[in-house]
Amino acid sequence: MSKHLTKRTEDYSKWYNELVVKADLAENSAVRGCMVIKPYGYAIWEKMQAELDRMFKETGHQNAYFPLFVPKSLFEAEEKNAEGFAKECAVVTHYRLQNDPDNEGKLRVDPEAKLEEELVVRPTSEAIIWNTYKGWIQSYRDLPLLINQWANVVRWEMRTRLFLRTAEFLWQEGHTAHATKTEAVKEAKLMQKVYANFAERFMAMPVIKGSKSESERFAGADDTFTIEALMQDGKALQAGTSHFLGQNFAKAFDVKYTSKEGKKEYVWATSWGVSTRLIGGLIMTHSDDAGLVLPPKLAPIQVVIVPIYKGEDQLNAITEKVSPIINDLRDKGVSVKFDDRDTFRPGAKFAEYELKGVPLRIAIGNRDLENGTLEIARRDTFEKQTIAQNKVVDVVVGLLEEIQDSLFKKALDYRDEHITEVSSFEEFKDVIENKGGFVSAHWDGTIETEDKIKELTKATIRCIANDVKEEEGVCVFTGKKSNRRVLFAKAY
Amino acid sequence: MSKHLTKRTEDYSKWYNELVVKADLAENSAVRGCMVIKPYGYAIWEKMQAELDRMFKETGHQNAYFPLFVPKSLFEAEEKNAEGFAKECAVVTHYRLQNDPDNEGKLRVDPEAKLEEELVVRPTSEAIIWNTYKGWIQSYRDLPLLINQWANVVRWEMRTRLFLRTAEFLWQEGHTAHATKTEAVKEAKLMQKVYANFAERFMAMPVIKGSKSESERFAGADDTFTIEALMQDGKALQAGTSHFLGQNFAKAFDVKYTSKEGKKEYVWATSWGVSTRLIGGLIMTHSDDAGLVLPPKLAPIQVVIVPIYKGEDQLNAITEKVSPIINDLRDKGVSVKFDDRDTFRPGAKFAEYELKGVPLRIAIGNRDLENGTLEIARRDTFEKQTIAQNKVVDVVVGLLEEIQDSLFKKALDYRDEHITEVSSFEEFKDVIENKGGFVSAHWDGTIETEDKIKELTKATIRCIANDVKEEEGVCVFTGKKSNRRVLFAKAY
Repeated sequence: MSKHLTKRTEDYSKWYNELVVKADLAENSAVRGCMVIKPYGYAIWEKMQAELDRMFKETGHQNAYFPLFVPKSLFEAEEKNAEGFAKECAVVTHYRLQNDPDNEGKLRVDPEAKLEEELVVRPTSEAIIWNTYKGWIQSYRDLPLLINQWANVVRWEMRTRLFLRTAEFLWQEGHTAHATKTEAVKEAKLMQKVYANFAERFMAMPVIKGSKSESERFAGADDTFTIEALMQDGKALQAGTSHFLGQNFAKAFDVKYTSKEGKKEYVWATSWGVSTRLIGGLIMTHSDDAGLVLPPKLAPIQVVIVPIYKGEDQLNAITEKVSPIINDLRDKGVSVKFDDRDTFRPGAKFAEYELKGVPLRIAIGNRDLENGTLEIARRDTFEKQTIAQNKVVDVVVGLLEEIQDSLFKKALDYRDEHITEVSSFEEFKDVIENKGGFVSAHWDGTIETEDKIKELTKATIRCIANDVKEEEGVCVFTGKKSNRRVLFAKAY
Repeated sequence: MSKHLTKRTEDYSKWYNELVVKADLAENSAVRGCMVIKPYGYAIWEKMQAELDRMFKETGHQNAYFPLFVPKSLFEAEEKNAEGFAKECAVVTHYRLQNDPDNEGKLRVDPEAKLEEELVVRPTSEAIIWNTYKGWIQSYRDLPLLINQWANVVRWEMRTRLFLRTAEFLWQEGHTAHATKTEAVKEAKLMQKVYANFAERFMAMPVIKGSKSESERFAGADDTFTIEALMQDGKALQAGTSHFLGQNFAKAFDVKYTSKEGKKEYVWATSWGVSTRLIGGLIMTHSDDAGLVLPPKLAPIQVVIVPIYKGEDQLNAITEKVSPIINDLRDKGVSVKFDDRDTFRPGAKFAEYELKGVPLRIAIGNRDLENGTLEIARRDTFEKQTIAQNKVVDVVVGLLEEIQDSLFKKALDYRDEHITEVSSFEEFKDVIENKGGFVSAHWDGTIETEDKIKELTKATIRCIANDVKEEEGVCVFTGKKSNRRVLFAKAY
């Protein structure tokens, strides 16, 4: 059967790639590293966007839109940021094509239409935005400036994977300006919390909130706050980051404000973003060998109803019975699909919705009509029960909540079982290689040690957890003194 | 006063440019021809998107996302389409920057990182989408395929104006595939109707539905259906187009389906789009010399409440009185802003909301507290009335509807007064030059005549109206026989 998936234990990476394609979420395109997000995958992104957008607005942010292109001279203004992204920039050099004189019916770049200054396709928008903010910020009255943008960005990555790492991806990027350092740090931490709430409450994906080590920081940031999730194969996924940018961009673009006291001061900045990568995290947190498992809060279809019938009369009788149930469910805000296609058999439909992770499936046949019953099946546990038709709305609403909670708890248990404290480098390597997950270890705080550990184990410092305890210890690698543990893992 | 606007009669074009900037809708960016859409402008776009998206989904469409880049070889596959857009394409030729050895701290394009095949930044997505559809469509069961995309596109226009014509703009583009010609034509016409409904019911902007003449068609279309609006300066604005693409793209990308009868057939296509240009149309349809006038259904803020007070006690008393009113209004779905900033005087606030086109302004002062009254002012007519506080919800809801209707009627009257039937070319030129608006004239149906008229008058055929009457006549320019009138106008 073409819908057959590789098992996770066989080849997790292959399982993921197959699942993304077979569940109709996304596919590779004709453009190297760029994906096509198919309607079912995009519907998940729309649900994510709606919740995040609401959360951003509730915390005082407004949306705006800035240009796709960044002139090279602006791009290079903040040197660290430019250095961090220069190696993966798509660059527009010409603005016209013309008929190719050597090749009938073909086009070529018009050499006469070379741009005076090259344009970088934004890999992130700090440069173009801070160049704009310069005109928007004069006085303390103009602060804080709390803006978000939903956009596409391009990073010319060499190794790409659907959703997880693509040359073009969709994201939101918040860019805020503040009068004081304290306020900017508070904002960056607030957005880390917003991301964590979104991940846990909507994606049912537990995350660890922490700070990045210096070498893992965003290029141009003074501090990067992250949320780190754990996938089923024991690898970590950086799911969202929020950066305290200090005055780096304000200085690079000369953005000052006049304080209440009449003094000119540089502005303090943050930026923060999550992307379509979250869909990859969602898939890898919950799905199984039968296909996608989606938390109800982000499932494009929460309940599918499949009629089991022979002939039009039976279908009509079922449809008549089911219509008011559908209306009642929709009134409760449940998204329902009634799949009465006659081009597929019920078995094929069951398989399709299993693969696509629809949380609840209702089947209703001729005998159910006689008995006033229907069968309801959970995607996450495969449990089935036969219930009275007049109970269906309550049961569905209850089960959707239960599934949402249960997916989170299952993922949390897995994650918690996969945080291992180690006290020697042997143990460190053993856990990274065999058990997987996060290794909690003392580290001497140097980039050299971090690099050496990465070289030897492929594990990187995912974060210094916000709730880490002060604790005397010695670096697992060098034996030097350390006063707190940090979390290492192999990561996507 | 810096908020002073040029009058429309003085210089309509200058009035427009100033208004867009002063009302905080958008501004030019550091990238030639690209705009920054500011939060207030973007909020209007979000309202437009929400309504359109709902209308698309109600008519069976799903959203998806396709790559920003189109490889040159795909771009040139449909020759007419390629020819139509080749002259305004931004082209990515390299994928990396490097440190400039001759220029410390600067970057340059890495000559080693030249792409094997250039990538066109999408000016429209038919090519990349039809190349994808080839993999999605095998059987009649896969049809119709009804997909929409919200995206940014780039057309390297030489003369740009905020919202109306920008190098990068935001839009939606629908791309559908059908088994039969009839079905595809029906779809293209349906979307024209959806656009017209949106324009008239939400933007309060009357439009004429019609077909384009051959020379004004979309490059690659067999037929283009348009909605044409009329701006206050007598120029027409093409506000949305829906294209019947025949089998042009199916043939260029070899997209065939197996019919029920087992025959391989080329697929029939449509595409349709509206863009941030609509915001330009919205502004130019309703606004006046005092600033923006927004129809309530698309106004980010529908009602602003300005307290008139001296000292904190008075403000507190007003706030207490106003809070339940705000809640009641919000319960009715009205978006309300209570502007209690103490950094601006009421007069400055009044001017700001006038400029920004907030449909209703409520002022409430100390005497109102005593009398149980408040003052409510309409932005469109400047009418004010003092009403009892306990009537405010009903009055506001009623006025918002009235304003919406009245803006539409006013625009419709203006439009209808500016459709002039002419029977000689002298008359034609006179109306185009002096009265403006649409000229309804007989035309011999040839491209030559159309071109000649354009050359002499700058007027183009905006459309052949859907509801045009068959009527014997002679071409206003050549005197040749004609059996229907078409609509000419100068256009944006």
